[in-house]
Amino acid sequence: MPERSSGGDDLFGPHNLPYGVFTTADEPGRRRLGVRLHDRVLDAGAAARALGSPYEALLAHGDLGPLMAAGRTAWRDVRRALTAWVSVPAHRAELEPLLHPLDTVELHLPYAVADYADFYSNEHHAANAGAILRPGGRALTPNWKHLPVGYHGRAGTVVVSGTHVVRPTGQRKTLTASEGDPRPVFGPTAKLDIEAEVGFVVGAPSPQGAPVPLAAFRDHVFGVCLLNDWSARDIQAWEGQPLGPFLAKSFATSVSAWVTPLEALDAARVAPPARTEPLLPYLDDTHDDEPGGLDLHITVSVNGEEVSHPPFSSMYWTAAQQLAHLTVNGASLRTGDLYGSGTVSGPERAQRGSLLELTWDGAEPLDLEAGKRTYLEDGDEVVLSAWAPGPDGTRVGLGEVTGRVAPAVTGS
Amino acid sequence: MPERSSGGDDLFGPHNLPYGVFTTADEPGRRRLGVRLHDRVLDAGAAARALGSPYEALLAHGDLGPLMAAGRTAWRDVRRALTAWVSVPAHRAELEPLLHPLDTVELHLPYAVADYADFYSNEHHAANAGAILRPGGRALTPNWKHLPVGYHGRAGTVVVSGTHVVRPTGQRKTLTASEGDPRPVFGPTAKLDIEAEVGFVVGAPSPQGAPVPLAAFRDHVFGVCLLNDWSARDIQAWEGQPLGPFLAKSFATSVSAWVTPLEALDAARVAPPARTEPLLPYLDDTHDDEPGGLDLHITVSVNGEEVSHPPFSSMYWTAAQQLAHLTVNGASLRTGDLYGSGTVSGPERAQRGSLLELTWDGAEPLDLEAGKRTYLEDGDEVVLSAWAPGPDGTRVGLGEVTGRVAPAVTGS
Repeated sequence: MPERSSGGDDLFGPHNLPYGVFTTADEPGRRRLGVRLHDRVLDAGAAARALGSPYEALLAHGDLGPLMAAGRTAWRDVRRALTAWVSVPAHRAELEPLLHPLDTVELHLPYAVADYADFYSNEHHAANAGAILRPGGRALTPNWKHLPVGYHGRAGTVVVSGTHVVRPTGQRKTLTASEGDPRPVFGPTAKLDIEAEVGFVVGAPSPQGAPVPLAAFRDHVFGVCLLNDWSARDIQAWEGQPLGPFLAKSFATSVSAWVTPLEALDAARVAPPARTEPLLPYLDDTHDDEPGGLDLHITVSVNGEEVSHPPFSSMYWTAAQQLAHLTVNGASLRTGDLYGSGTVSGPERAQRGSLLELTWDGAEPLDLEAGKRTYLEDGDEVVLSAWAPGPDGTRVGLGEVTGRVAPAVTGS
Repeated sequence: MPERSSGGDDLFGPHNLPYGVFTTADEPGRRRLGVRLHDRVLDAGAAARALGSPYEALLAHGDLGPLMAAGRTAWRDVRRALTAWVSVPAHRAELEPLLHPLDTVELHLPYAVADYADFYSNEHHAANAGAILRPGGRALTPNWKHLPVGYHGRAGTVVVSGTHVVRPTGQRKTLTASEGDPRPVFGPTAKLDIEAEVGFVVGAPSPQGAPVPLAAFRDHVFGVCLLNDWSARDIQAWEGQPLGPFLAKSFATSVSAWVTPLEALDAARVAPPARTEPLLPYLDDTHDDEPGGLDLHITVSVNGEEVSHPPFSSMYWTAAQQLAHLTVNGASLRTGDLYGSGTVSGPERAQRGSLLELTWDGAEPLDLEAGKRTYLEDGDEVVLSAWAPGPDGTRVGLGEVTGRVAPAVTGS
């Protein structure tokens, strides 16, 4: 039905159909569930109503929560219905007025984030970070190949793509301090970084005390987004012992406005890298029917210039393993739980997913059109985008996540 | 008006009036906001209605959220109204039917926990834990006296007092493994511990990018609860590097059903211990009008036997400093944010707030009536209770937090 994007590629065709939440300029207070089709947004609740669909009850909402909570069978059925709606010529006239051009709508965080956890599951990233941050030590901690290392972050500061990110202020040690002086200084971070990650959004909850096995991954995870885990490296280095990152991460985490249904990525499933340590049974996916990796091709751009192409297929731990680990102690899942994959890096320099790695903590600046960069400067804009193989030779686009650095708030 | 508790002490008199949420046996589906008075619960919404109070709009709810979000002036005004209601003999007849005996109601988590963070702010605890867990290293990390070390935990597994705590399963290293074998084993934790803490409940939100200064603490923090930060020490030791605790804590965190208004603890304010390092301006409370410490006297009981009396007045970092630190990077606050003080321990052995410290990681078992204890056994019940000095020589009771250990769920 609707014509294709002028871009020529078909990243957001009927084989994709990611979900989001939008408002229009004439009704800025009314949030509506939208489905992206090429460069337009279908008002999904209005479409269900117009077509007399029984799924109106799941789609006529201002956020994705009810659909996310409805579970895997409902996700499949609603997706089938949407695919039919946008593919059957007979619906064209009815749906045309319900399709809003992307550049006329505002996109919002599409669901309430419940708990946010973040992993550290890419061996290239972990080895690089270990070599930079713990020189002389083992690059990987002894646990790294036995479990997906993770920690909890701040759900309340997860923001939607496009939100400005204010440079955080905090304590850090400086190079100018004499080596023997243990005192920190206070001020805006001088090492504002990104982490290119993929986020997994939990739809169906699970009760406390009931681990979610590998095989139940698709019963609980609704979809996928891109995620920028903004990080202040100097704050992190000072605060991080012994309990891990806190303020170095909690000021903002950006996610794409579009959640791609897991089903849209079926053609992108690939085997993860060979594991070099035996896996405990609850993490052992070696005999699973469906490979646990995802062949997502990420691009990191700074001020419009591509600086890296991290390959998600390089992740040592899969999203299903991360979920099994997250819940193996009996922790419950809630609709809206979000977990990040951890920074995605490949073996090549141009595949690294953070400036920490790309510039080796500033020692090897990037020579960009906008000038040399070690870490981010005020005004810099970072964009993460990605695509994956789709059915029949198509490509599936993930919604991009953008963020511009705003200057630190002055005072105190 | 209502007679005093038969206990003789007046921990929950009209000078206290903590808030909670309850249901009665005849209406188990209808949650109501309650105010504790001695050993009864006042149905606060019904009382407001009966007395024609304008505060019915804040009190006639099934959770504390609307009152918590209303802000400090509303908190003061509502508390004044409640104090008047329970103190004026003229209201006795009207309120009597709205007072439910405590042992006839069920208490619930009184608000939706937004983000949960936990600190590590007691010097005795940090020094003990450092000596036990990092033998040969510095007991305190270099940052410890410059900032309140903290991390985020799992909000979705915060449970109300009385909820059973299922022994978590996970990865750990065992003593039986040969020293050279790096592989973990999988099974129920053998080192299930408690941490006796005080929780602070955020009422009024703050926007992203706007740090909350020390002086604004009482504009944002609604009240205080007791908190048991259950911890699996063997899981923690294996998973914790480099990103801190994760599954060792995320299986359950118990809070008291009662939230004590900050105002009820005005007489308990004390100066914190002398600080031995200079404080950065955003943490400098040395010239504050009101001392930032709280003289809370905590008791830890295991199976009915008192095993420790941690003094909250020994906390190096105050709750106001913790909040200022939590937000100094621009992190926003939401209604329902909860943060834990960190384990409370005093200088004496009988003042330590965890079994890790009380038994020195099992090397010095406690000789209890129920038998020797290193860590918790299945069926053990832990109770945290506390009191603080109140006005005019009274005492203010905090609601207790109880939890019984249930056996691990079997299966991998």
